[in-house]
Amino acid sequence: MPTLCKPSVGVPEHVVTMEETLEFARTVHAGNPQLPLALRLIGNTGVRKRHIVQPIEQALRHPGFEERNRIYEIESKKRCPGVIEQALAHAGVTARDIDAIIYVSCTGFMMPSLTAWLINTMGFRPDTRQLPIAQLGCAAGGTAINRAHDFCTAYPGGNVLIVSCELCSLCYQPTDDGVGSLLSDGLFGDAVAAAVVRGHGGTGITLERNASYLIPDTEDWISYAVRSTGFHFQLDRRVPGTMEPLAPVLRRFTDGHGWDVGKLDFYLIHAGGPRILDDLAKFLDVDREMFRHSWATLTEYGNIASAVVLDAARRLFDEDPPSPGDHGIIAAFGPGITAEMAVGSWSTDTRAALDLAPPAAAVAHRDPELV
Amino acid sequence: MPTLCKPSVGVPEHVVTMEETLEFARTVHAGNPQLPLALRLIGNTGVRKRHIVQPIEQALRHPGFEERNRIYEIESKKRCPGVIEQALAHAGVTARDIDAIIYVSCTGFMMPSLTAWLINTMGFRPDTRQLPIAQLGCAAGGTAINRAHDFCTAYPGGNVLIVSCELCSLCYQPTDDGVGSLLSDGLFGDAVAAAVVRGHGGTGITLERNASYLIPDTEDWISYAVRSTGFHFQLDRRVPGTMEPLAPVLRRFTDGHGWDVGKLDFYLIHAGGPRILDDLAKFLDVDREMFRHSWATLTEYGNIASAVVLDAARRLFDEDPPSPGDHGIIAAFGPGITAEMAVGSWSTDTRAALDLAPPAAAVAHRDPELV
Repeated sequence: MPTLCKPSVGVPEHVVTMEETLEFARTVHAGNPQLPLALRLIGNTGVRKRHIVQPIEQALRHPGFEERNRIYEIESKKRCPGVIEQALAHAGVTARDIDAIIYVSCTGFMMPSLTAWLINTMGFRPDTRQLPIAQLGCAAGGTAINRAHDFCTAYPGGNVLIVSCELCSLCYQPTDDGVGSLLSDGLFGDAVAAAVVRGHGGTGITLERNASYLIPDTEDWISYAVRSTGFHFQLDRRVPGTMEPLAPVLRRFTDGHGWDVGKLDFYLIHAGGPRILDDLAKFLDVDREMFRHSWATLTEYGNIASAVVLDAARRLFDEDPPSPGDHGIIAAFGPGITAEMAVGSWSTDTRAALDLAPPAAAVAHRDPELV
Repeated sequence: MPTLCKPSVGVPEHVVTMEETLEFARTVHAGNPQLPLALRLIGNTGVRKRHIVQPIEQALRHPGFEERNRIYEIESKKRCPGVIEQALAHAGVTARDIDAIIYVSCTGFMMPSLTAWLINTMGFRPDTRQLPIAQLGCAAGGTAINRAHDFCTAYPGGNVLIVSCELCSLCYQPTDDGVGSLLSDGLFGDAVAAAVVRGHGGTGITLERNASYLIPDTEDWISYAVRSTGFHFQLDRRVPGTMEPLAPVLRRFTDGHGWDVGKLDFYLIHAGGPRILDDLAKFLDVDREMFRHSWATLTEYGNIASAVVLDAARRLFDEDPPSPGDHGIIAAFGPGITAEMAVGSWSTDTRAALDLAPPAAAVAHRDPELV
């Protein structure tokens, strides 16, 4: 059965704290009548710090779409390989064992996508399938897991590498000053995540079922305006309320698998913002603490888009790995509004218990290797 | 077994003939020292006419990336539904029967991609999986067929809708005047194609095996430069020579399936340009006439990117449908340099022979419904 092995996550070296975010917002958007509301919303996110690929002063300048995309290319090439090497090691496989690479990123655009460069430089086989996805936003981490699951179902014994490279700070648009934009400026962070879905063996979450759901008629609630200045993130005020319609969808999904969505052993939920996590816990009748790995991601990194569910999974592996047979759910949300859902059970590879988690105390408050 | 049913293809109403292309090139790029070479190369493409979404005078003006992308959105929404309806009808399924939509397009960028709008407006189920692919260029038609094949292998009985929307004329860049750009300006055309891969039943090409291959170290041979003016297509002069390294790859692929690549019953090859088709026929030791459907696409529509293999397939279905059990290959090529390959056999659905092809004479020289 396809198993999601321990993800590797890297965050960049430039740190922006909540206090700095609020201070920059006050300075840059002084006089904006929406500012007080935006500051309150940012304060409520609970994001303590974020990591970004450039010093904040540089990130706040817009050098043009072409230069932005050039930075995206340089930074993604600099930061992905180390994270990928670690994900391969976690899974106990080498680049030659990988049959498909699913690369998800909505914060830069390259054709060919980074998959071609990764194959050429990291020793992947020339016959590796390439699946780059740029248009599913924050949901794409879930999509990647689900399509990897499907691939390994179609090719038992196949191995899929998932890479999520989200350099959200490269989509900062200085001239966008609506409340949704100001809030986003204070919410999103940068990260690279990678994980292997192994067709056979591996310790981790054995994927059993997946599904997707589009909330009807919400296409324009999360979207990009594509302009000469690049991608402009547009966030509708109704988005934080989407857990009310999605909770019953998640419930039906786990019901269909014979599991009670309110009584699972672990939850890896997209940390889109605090209301998403609070509401979903409420509507699923789950203790807030059960979403602790998502809360930790949000607090320490901000919303890192498609990398969130992989980072939440990494924390689960590191901090409190489940017991064999424990049941859990992965749920990512993004534009559409689309939910990508998966359920699975914890499995340990008895043949090669190579990636036992270190004791929780050793890693609880340490950021993974800076990339 | 997953079966690729008859594709539907629509081309826009604005026609540019070879003569007009040469005339416009002479006028717009008068004085360019590369012009004589470019004119010769364009003349050699054999592209008799192309169809584009705007009158040529309008297409030659660049109204900015934002406006271009706005036109892409309007035109794709206007032109995809009719082609999709026809593809569903060809396959004998309804929108409610579709489990996944693979939308491939490298000539405009939307987030969410058109999949969300299609689900909302055409009656697809909210739980339809969405797989938008923007970064595999001309190879993406093959990728879509291959990932649909995999999906139906993972979910026997599932149905996948493939949509290829390539509005190449919206990527015309007036200031790019190198030989590669001038040639591309005279080569690419616009089209929308759609097809259903049915998990069970259906008349068409039953997909048996697929593979992907990246020619090492050719990432920058076909690429986009992403600028404030949009996507700038960059074509290296070495690209037309890529069939020499790819022919042995195709041969090994069919050998692995127990078939001789030189003795198949049908060939659906990406019509990237005349040299691609000529060279591949030569290196595979196949009669040039065996690629007639690809040549027809090239001659009548130009290179329509990821839609080429679907249009070549449509011509096969229309003009000379194979006999049950006949063997064939589908091969698409694009940035990477990536080849996406599939082999399959002709099957007829005896339960519902609903899409018998009309006699060849009736359709041979008629464009499909204008979209």
